[in-house]
Amino acid sequence: MKYLMCLRYVGTNFCGSQIQPSVRTVQGVLNDAFEALFGVRCMVTSCSRTDSGVHANGATLTVALPDGTLPIPPERLPIAVMPHLPPDVGVYGATAVPDSFHVRHDAQGKEYVYLLYNSPVRNPFYENRAWFYPRPIDGEGLERMKEAAGHLLGTHDFAALMAQGSPVATTVRTLQGLRVLREGELIRFEVEADGFLYNMVRIIVGTLVEVAAGRISPEEIPDILASCDRTRAGMTAPPEGLYLNRVFYTK
Amino acid sequence: MKYLMCLRYVGTNFCGSQIQPSVRTVQGVLNDAFEALFGVRCMVTSCSRTDSGVHANGATLTVALPDGTLPIPPERLPIAVMPHLPPDVGVYGATAVPDSFHVRHDAQGKEYVYLLYNSPVRNPFYENRAWFYPRPIDGEGLERMKEAAGHLLGTHDFAALMAQGSPVATTVRTLQGLRVLREGELIRFEVEADGFLYNMVRIIVGTLVEVAAGRISPEEIPDILASCDRTRAGMTAPPEGLYLNRVFYTK
Repeated sequence: MKYLMCLRYVGTNFCGSQIQPSVRTVQGVLNDAFEALFGVRCMVTSCSRTDSGVHANGATLTVALPDGTLPIPPERLPIAVMPHLPPDVGVYGATAVPDSFHVRHDAQGKEYVYLLYNSPVRNPFYENRAWFYPRPIDGEGLERMKEAAGHLLGTHDFAALMAQGSPVATTVRTLQGLRVLREGELIRFEVEADGFLYNMVRIIVGTLVEVAAGRISPEEIPDILASCDRTRAGMTAPPEGLYLNRVFYTK
Repeated sequence: MKYLMCLRYVGTNFCGSQIQPSVRTVQGVLNDAFEALFGVRCMVTSCSRTDSGVHANGATLTVALPDGTLPIPPERLPIAVMPHLPPDVGVYGATAVPDSFHVRHDAQGKEYVYLLYNSPVRNPFYENRAWFYPRPIDGEGLERMKEAAGHLLGTHDFAALMAQGSPVATTVRTLQGLRVLREGELIRFEVEADGFLYNMVRIIVGTLVEVAAGRISPEEIPDILASCDRTRAGMTAPPEGLYLNRVFYTK
């Protein structure tokens, strides 16, 4: 029996999602919760790894039960496991999937959201949940970010927008969506792609913010992409604004 | 020199807003922050007291400087005091007001917001920030709440919707607004009045939720108000969903 479900967590008090000895990780918490529920160690697999401080609204995971384990109907699973999870982790929307399903290899794409809080003073409700960026971004800056975003859309080699030294077979990705929206004092970036390189969303956001600030012009974006040179793109935006929002699978 | 400004705080880690010895309170934190900034104890006065766990998005306070204290321009004050405040408290929108201005007595009304998270499973992002209420509230339940809200609007004796034993000169208040909105899995209550009795918003929300659940009918509301009997109204909703959102002053 194998379940697919969605995962939420507030990343603030985790040392990232991937299991490591003697630190608190999302994977470690999930392993323990499903073991407590089913009375046996299960195979828990996540759609991706996130860094310390990064959040998830709609990550995915699969739980495979060892043969002979008494299953729970999928629709009951999120409620059943809830008492075994800490308050900063939750699961929802469980379904049964074939044993051949792979939560990472079968993913067709992902959507990340990045929140930036743009105000001269901090807002306690966004502490650790958005990037506090006090320098004003006006309507013109927002338009420049949207123009730069247009240059990033499509299929490109994104090596310039990847943390240096990350081993990967290819750095070509297809960016299907990159929306920049202002909602009061929040600026919301929605980024959808068939896959993401290490730190890619945070470097995209950091680059767009430097475009808003006038340190990079929107017209430079194609050159920066073509250069494959990380030093030409903008800074890496901090982790606390980043949310893994959705993972797409074909039906 | 007297300043009026708006105040935000996440109430989770405070023993309420009013100062008490040897516990952490919002008032205590503000007293210390302004003393650190101006180098002298200032007279810090808040618009109202809130209970442990209750939040504020737009409370108000005044800070009166002792004669001879070097003032700071009002527009600079929120930024200047920020380094002296903990991450769960912030101020914004400061203006200079006459010495005769009183932040509590001159208030014409207030708006509270109450958030209820209505889903079978907890959402970590609303932990301590909304009432987790797993029993489904459907469209019909929402309509019943709106109907009941209509009966609460206007000028009434709200004694039935006040925590018992609260000393107060009169229990008559005018409810100018009571909106019930669904935003996905959140139900948002917006409550505006010329003044509020102790626990009044939480008892209004608790009563409306019992209306949604069918334990109280909307038509009973006028009788409950007329009875002035706290035991006839609904439960007191928990503090973590409550936000003091705005305080109104005449210009």
